[in-house]
Amino acid sequence: MTLNLKNLLNPKNKPSKMGEFQELQPIDGLEISAVSADLYGDGRDDLTLFYFKDGANYAGVYTTSKVTSASIKWNLNIKRHFVKALMVNTQNANVFTGTKGAQGLKEIAHALSKSLTLKSSQSPEGVSEVVKIKNRISELVKKLKTKQNKFVWFKAASAIMTTDTRPKVAYEECKIGNKLIRISGIAKGSGMIAPNMATMLAFIFTDANIPSVFLKSILKKNIATTFNSITVDSDTSTNDMVGIFATGKAKNSKIYNVLDPKLQDFEKALHRLNLNLAKQIIVDGEGAKKFITISTIGARSTSMAKNVGFAIANSPLVKTAIAGEDPNWGRIIMAIGKSGENIIANKIQLKIGNYLVAEQGKVEKNYVESEVKEYMKWDSVNIEVNLNLGNAEYKVYTCDFTHDYISINADYRN
Amino acid sequence: MTLNLKNLLNPKNKPSKMGEFQELQPIDGLEISAVSADLYGDGRDDLTLFYFKDGANYAGVYTTSKVTSASIKWNLNIKRHFVKALMVNTQNANVFTGTKGAQGLKEIAHALSKSLTLKSSQSPEGVSEVVKIKNRISELVKKLKTKQNKFVWFKAASAIMTTDTRPKVAYEECKIGNKLIRISGIAKGSGMIAPNMATMLAFIFTDANIPSVFLKSILKKNIATTFNSITVDSDTSTNDMVGIFATGKAKNSKIYNVLDPKLQDFEKALHRLNLNLAKQIIVDGEGAKKFITISTIGARSTSMAKNVGFAIANSPLVKTAIAGEDPNWGRIIMAIGKSGENIIANKIQLKIGNYLVAEQGKVEKNYVESEVKEYMKWDSVNIEVNLNLGNAEYKVYTCDFTHDYISINADYRN
Repeated sequence: MTLNLKNLLNPKNKPSKMGEFQELQPIDGLEISAVSADLYGDGRDDLTLFYFKDGANYAGVYTTSKVTSASIKWNLNIKRHFVKALMVNTQNANVFTGTKGAQGLKEIAHALSKSLTLKSSQSPEGVSEVVKIKNRISELVKKLKTKQNKFVWFKAASAIMTTDTRPKVAYEECKIGNKLIRISGIAKGSGMIAPNMATMLAFIFTDANIPSVFLKSILKKNIATTFNSITVDSDTSTNDMVGIFATGKAKNSKIYNVLDPKLQDFEKALHRLNLNLAKQIIVDGEGAKKFITISTIGARSTSMAKNVGFAIANSPLVKTAIAGEDPNWGRIIMAIGKSGENIIANKIQLKIGNYLVAEQGKVEKNYVESEVKEYMKWDSVNIEVNLNLGNAEYKVYTCDFTHDYISINADYRN
Repeated sequence: MTLNLKNLLNPKNKPSKMGEFQELQPIDGLEISAVSADLYGDGRDDLTLFYFKDGANYAGVYTTSKVTSASIKWNLNIKRHFVKALMVNTQNANVFTGTKGAQGLKEIAHALSKSLTLKSSQSPEGVSEVVKIKNRISELVKKLKTKQNKFVWFKAASAIMTTDTRPKVAYEECKIGNKLIRISGIAKGSGMIAPNMATMLAFIFTDANIPSVFLKSILKKNIATTFNSITVDSDTSTNDMVGIFATGKAKNSKIYNVLDPKLQDFEKALHRLNLNLAKQIIVDGEGAKKFITISTIGARSTSMAKNVGFAIANSPLVKTAIAGEDPNWGRIIMAIGKSGENIIANKIQLKIGNYLVAEQGKVEKNYVESEVKEYMKWDSVNIEVNLNLGNAEYKVYTCDFTHDYISINADYRN
């Protein structure tokens, strides 16, 4: 991976002096710790606790897969969207684990709530991972850090990783009324360690005071053009989730309406943060050498633009051509054609970078392949498809398809 | 490729003594020739002519892509489904060629019809491929072979190849009433040579006497479970087509009804032939090392079974796991989950080969991974998903996803 995040991410998200990572600020009302429960057998941090002493409003968006983990089912059962803690373990995805998976979660949650309230450790009984996790809970609680400096965030973001090659963090500030609001987020990308399924996870923490029902609708709308606009290999995990936790400690004036203009700045900041994290996941996509942005414009509807964009982004032939640094516009046209959308071939205008490549049903007459070949050598490649049918548009972000993807996903047993 | 076709293809399709290829029989009323128009610059055969002296009833099924080649548009414009000749060129797919593409076809068709009727050559004018093709038409017509032995079929099947590594031929016999009917078919698979798009093409020739309107409905129904049940990489060409040509020379009694019981044997034979050709395309899939059959049973509808099957067959994570010979059932479950179908996770029964791997929402208690790992080393891998929701089923055929696929499609410029 030689991709330079600085060039890819929103310039508003200034990288810190440490390097490419933003310096995250503490969120009032939040405490964090991460320890090793030795789930990997190598001592790495694999258990993370986020504790809200005075509670936090919570909203989550989950995978659309029809096969979900016991943990997702657990989260979907949360009745009151005001939570005291979030615990994340890695290594075991708790999918297709039958009733044992749900039972394990119950035991862990019980031990955790006891430990948090009583500050006393339990002597748990059970099997394998459940025991290992329960055994570490008192240590996890003891190590909670009230003031999260960049190292605390980095440690937490690292502890939730699986095959990620780097932790993913992002930070934004905004105003609600006259109050400064902080938003810190961490995420992990996709990778597979047989037979467990890994996942896209993002956890966002803010000191804003926003009711969970409004958090939910802001998050849902926001995700449509951030986390839902990325694809590495078209596969969807059984565990994907994005959660937002609001401690309310910023003490902004009460919000009574999701359309309150006071929320606009917050919504924009959350969008920048989510898009930043989503792009970091793509940059760290398995085997990825190039970051690809596909803008579909001039569509009849957002759904049309989205389908065309994903048809291109998920085409193995397009992704391998880009890995080969070849401006193979024919494959892009092929992918548009197979999208199932009612497009008109003669109206398509196709740009690679700033180069107009094809229009009016044929290659553009001033197209010089050597110029576009040179452009294809860049780390970040832009493709723009103008369908010339309407005003809707959608951006999809993806990466190329390389030998390393096959190595990571086929040769992992060797 | 070390796959042995003999194990994969329908045992009814006996391979000839020459090796793995079936010996095709001549079809009365058909003449074939193939020559080189030097479209590749290396003298290989690239222009093939199928001539029906007394005409043939014709039916075709075409790509569902919204971007189609000039040649597909030409075929769709055929008004009277009784044709005199089929000409196939390779190398130039005639996609996104603007009005020039259609004009070239017109010139070629004009030259061909003149040459076939008058047996005299033309002196054509035009550009590049069109001139090259027109220049070879008289030779193509002169070389027409009335009696097609296996070498003539082999030559024609080779002339339509692009990145295929072997020609694809199949032969079936059946009865309509008391008449023996012969069906010979050739096909080519998918591969890409930038910036032209390659394609799945199949041409079927029979001496049956069946009106084109019935041919069309038989072909359409037939293709749903043969050519439309295969996938190499989920990409759809702008040129895909399957055409059937019936000379009527077998002189079977006239068919007045597509449901005529006399047609049942013909339909079955055509299905065997199409499935045989479709499987040969998968076996020759780019970089393919393993042939994969995915049977989805117990679905509420055929469409549900088909969607689940293709979600598995098109999952890069499933395909790479199989390339790595790993029984990664978790990835198969993931793919079922993302199919969008309303399945019930706890009802799924998953088999790899004859091994029951998962059921009731968890791994099967007698599952022994080492046994299934051994099975994964086979050239041909069967996956069976029982959704336990109904009685519908569908089979999808695909291949694994290997380093060679990336090499063929990313490194082709090097």
